Amino acid sequence: MAKDKKMVEQITSMDVDFAQWYTDVVTKAELIDYTSVKGCMVIKPAGYAIWENIQKELDARFKETGVENVYLPMFIPENLLRKEAELVNGFAPEVAWVTQGGEEPLQERLCVRPTSETLFSDFYKNDVQSYRDLPKIYNQWCSVVRWEKTTRPFLRSREFLWQEGHTVHATYEEAVERTEMMLNLYADFCQDVLAIPVVRGRKTEKEKFAGAEATYTIESLMHDGQALQSGTSHNFGSKFAEAYDIQFTDRDNKLKYAYQTSWGMTTRMIGAIIMVHGDDSGLVLPPRIAPVQAVVVPVQQRKEGVLEKAQELKDVLAAAGIRTRLDDSDKSPGWKFAEAEMRGIPIRIEIGPKDMEAGQCVVVRRDTREKTVVALNELGTKAPEILAAMQQDMFERARVHRDEHTFTAPNKEEFQKLTSGRPGFIKAMWCGERACEEAIKEEYGVTSRCIPFDQEHIADECVYCGKAAKHMVYWGKAY
Amino acid sequence: MAKDKKMVEQITSMDVDFAQWYTDVVTKAELIDYTSVKGCMVIKPAGYAIWENIQKELDARFKETGVENVYLPMFIPENLLRKEAELVNGFAPEVAWVTQGGEEPLQERLCVRPTSETLFSDFYKNDVQSYRDLPKIYNQWCSVVRWEKTTRPFLRSREFLWQEGHTVHATYEEAVERTEMMLNLYADFCQDVLAIPVVRGRKTEKEKFAGAEATYTIESLMHDGQALQSGTSHNFGSKFAEAYDIQFTDRDNKLKYAYQTSWGMTTRMIGAIIMVHGDDSGLVLPPRIAPVQAVVVPVQQRKEGVLEKAQELKDVLAAAGIRTRLDDSDKSPGWKFAEAEMRGIPIRIEIGPKDMEAGQCVVVRRDTREKTVVALNELGTKAPEILAAMQQDMFERARVHRDEHTFTAPNKEEFQKLTSGRPGFIKAMWCGERACEEAIKEEYGVTSRCIPFDQEHIADECVYCGKAAKHMVYWGKAY
Repeated sequence: MAKDKKMVEQITSMDVDFAQWYTDVVTKAELIDYTSVKGCMVIKPAGYAIWENIQKELDARFKETGVENVYLPMFIPENLLRKEAELVNGFAPEVAWVTQGGEEPLQERLCVRPTSETLFSDFYKNDVQSYRDLPKIYNQWCSVVRWEKTTRPFLRSREFLWQEGHTVHATYEEAVERTEMMLNLYADFCQDVLAIPVVRGRKTEKEKFAGAEATYTIESLMHDGQALQSGTSHNFGSKFAEAYDIQFTDRDNKLKYAYQTSWGMTTRMIGAIIMVHGDDSGLVLPPRIAPVQAVVVPVQQRKEGVLEKAQELKDVLAAAGIRTRLDDSDKSPGWKFAEAEMRGIPIRIEIGPKDMEAGQCVVVRRDTREKTVVALNELGTKAPEILAAMQQDMFERARVHRDEHTFTAPNKEEFQKLTSGRPGFIKAMWCGERACEEAIKEEYGVTSRCIPFDQEHIADECVYCGKAAKHMVYWGKAY
Repeated sequence: MAKDKKMVEQITSMDVDFAQWYTDVVTKAELIDYTSVKGCMVIKPAGYAIWENIQKELDARFKETGVENVYLPMFIPENLLRKEAELVNGFAPEVAWVTQGGEEPLQERLCVRPTSETLFSDFYKNDVQSYRDLPKIYNQWCSVVRWEKTTRPFLRSREFLWQEGHTVHATYEEAVERTEMMLNLYADFCQDVLAIPVVRGRKTEKEKFAGAEATYTIESLMHDGQALQSGTSHNFGSKFAEAYDIQFTDRDNKLKYAYQTSWGMTTRMIGAIIMVHGDDSGLVLPPRIAPVQAVVVPVQQRKEGVLEKAQELKDVLAAAGIRTRLDDSDKSPGWKFAEAEMRGIPIRIEIGPKDMEAGQCVVVRRDTREKTVVALNELGTKAPEILAAMQQDMFERARVHRDEHTFTAPNKEEFQKLTSGRPGFIKAMWCGERACEEAIKEEYGVTSRCIPFDQEHIADECVYCGKAAKHMVYWGKAY
């Protein structure tokens, strides 16, 4: 029974050390492994299967809005990157450079893409000639590289997986519409599928993406009260079009610059799932994103008929559209329970000789550990209901937690108090000046997360300088 | 009507210049575009959609055999690569090296993965401890880089997309079984889905993958009689396990080296589809892999009811599970026909006022241009039948072409004649000596494609040296 070398070991409590808890969960739930390549990780089957589900969900939603997938090279010639000066200033300090190909040094260095605005622009320059060629709504699923100094699995690694959408339009309005559409798509996806509530808003000038006219963002709050930027959508106006000469002949026969957007979501969302929903027993996966949604655990599986019945229940659940696994290994039931909890499997179904006699099984929810006795002939209808309720409850709990950790600072004293208290979102007024934003970061250790689309009037003056306020801003410590 | 800037331009005839025909098709069917990055290409929506279908089909087949997907870093530290000397000799001349990360030179160079045996081995070394951890049947979908000097879209580019499976087993037999299983999976996929017949066999020592104990391959024949290696599956025995120290405690409590395999298929298969099935009007896509399987083209679409009826037919086809597009653009029907042919859409459905009156439409097959008049109320059942017949016929035609271009050389004179005649597979006996293989390449310009599993006895002696023959070999010119 307990002869396995690997034990379902105790993980650090999140209240004791949240960072260590996170590291314990990502490794013990077997989501990742460290590698010989500093700052890069192996995404193991349990982690990658979550990413595959994220891809499947997002990709289907993208395609409904007319997105087409493409693939562009992973290398960007230095010369091309330098064309857009702002972008270079943004990324140059953190790119990896290829300087040698085969046995010869390259005449021009190539950077491994940190993002692909430059390549898409260079491509669109030739691909777009007439208004008839517009819009182009392209996306690619790929990996990108940013040479980060400090890294953490999923949250910040030198290489990560993402999708990057890059679109080009004939009008400014259409570009704005697409930027908003994709932000809303991300927000709906986070809320409906990942059970993560988000705040939608705009980044300040200081925090926006290098080269963008406007960056929209969704911000979520982790269990420890720190914020996580969870998806961004950028409106470039015609800035890149001018730098890369993307012109088209419009209906009026005039040559015009095109308008562009880009938008991305990354494997860091796996980190968000862990930090929003996890607990001291490990991962808790929202049913809609869980690679395995139900595990059937036979109790006293050597007794006659138990394994057969367990297999039967597995088939019933699969027929109900639930991704199900049967754990018929020779480990003890207690061990199997702990392992399924560590891996965050939404429900487990216990079935033993006594249950069989009573014509029932026990369904246990991972999030609340609530046990429901279900008649065997009702499992196929009850299990989906329990999963749906769990999905809803997980979102509600995350929303309540987020709301309980969202504070309002009408003045500087309150702001100071809140920034030194337990972390969370802090809503406060801001004059719109970069100097104030920088001073706030310097003095209070928080950054502007976003200027939310849903504005509230908290006070008349900037919380820092006292001048007339322009915006209400969400502030916080961020991953 | 014909005001569009882009014309469906004449493409070079394949009989005049096959290479130019190929280039014309990949660009005019809008599969790829060239980029500022030498040797790298943009895979455009029409090309990437084919790859997505290949991925979907292969991935589902993989998973049925127990494959789990993972993701490993794209970088390999030089030191790690050098551990397996044979592999380094194989790939060192053609890798891209990252020497700078951010603003500082790296202490150790990183190569951009040309393939990931070294990384998987380094990972398995820690991940595998006991026989209970085995087997691991992992795969990743990613891009790889090989610094080729001469490149051609899909067939040979500096960066390409592929899947690479890497497995580790407790016994040699299990590794052999997996190597064969994946080769057969590739062969079935090529034949059933891509309508491409393949020869299954083993590579010679000279042609096998660096570091492999045995490389199995499927070889297909292009329209011009040149061969294309279409998928490979490698058995490494315990060679990598010994180099990277992958040991496990077996049931008998002894420490043993594990056994490994790897296997891959790439975007070059898109090149194979083009070169096996294409014709002088452009691409011809086998229905099962075609992103768009049917295009509905309204004739006299401004006449009352035509567009509505065309939309109705599109819905009927979609309901029958056929991926369908309606071309209601303002181009002329002739233009639309040519464009649909260029893009290789398997069937087009023509519907105009006269057809409507007669209660029928015309279905035209892309491969044979055969026209079938179909009653409107039968389209939903007839169209799938026509597509199924087309898929089958395309395979048969490719098989006949392959067989007609497979020649037998019982002796040196015949071999010499065949190698200087029209290209194709040449079956001939071989003594098994590398020297003979090299001399044949040198003198006759053909390489050994494989030692087919289905052996035939053509003669007693090696076609080159006259010594006792060991194997019958397929020889040919290859891409």
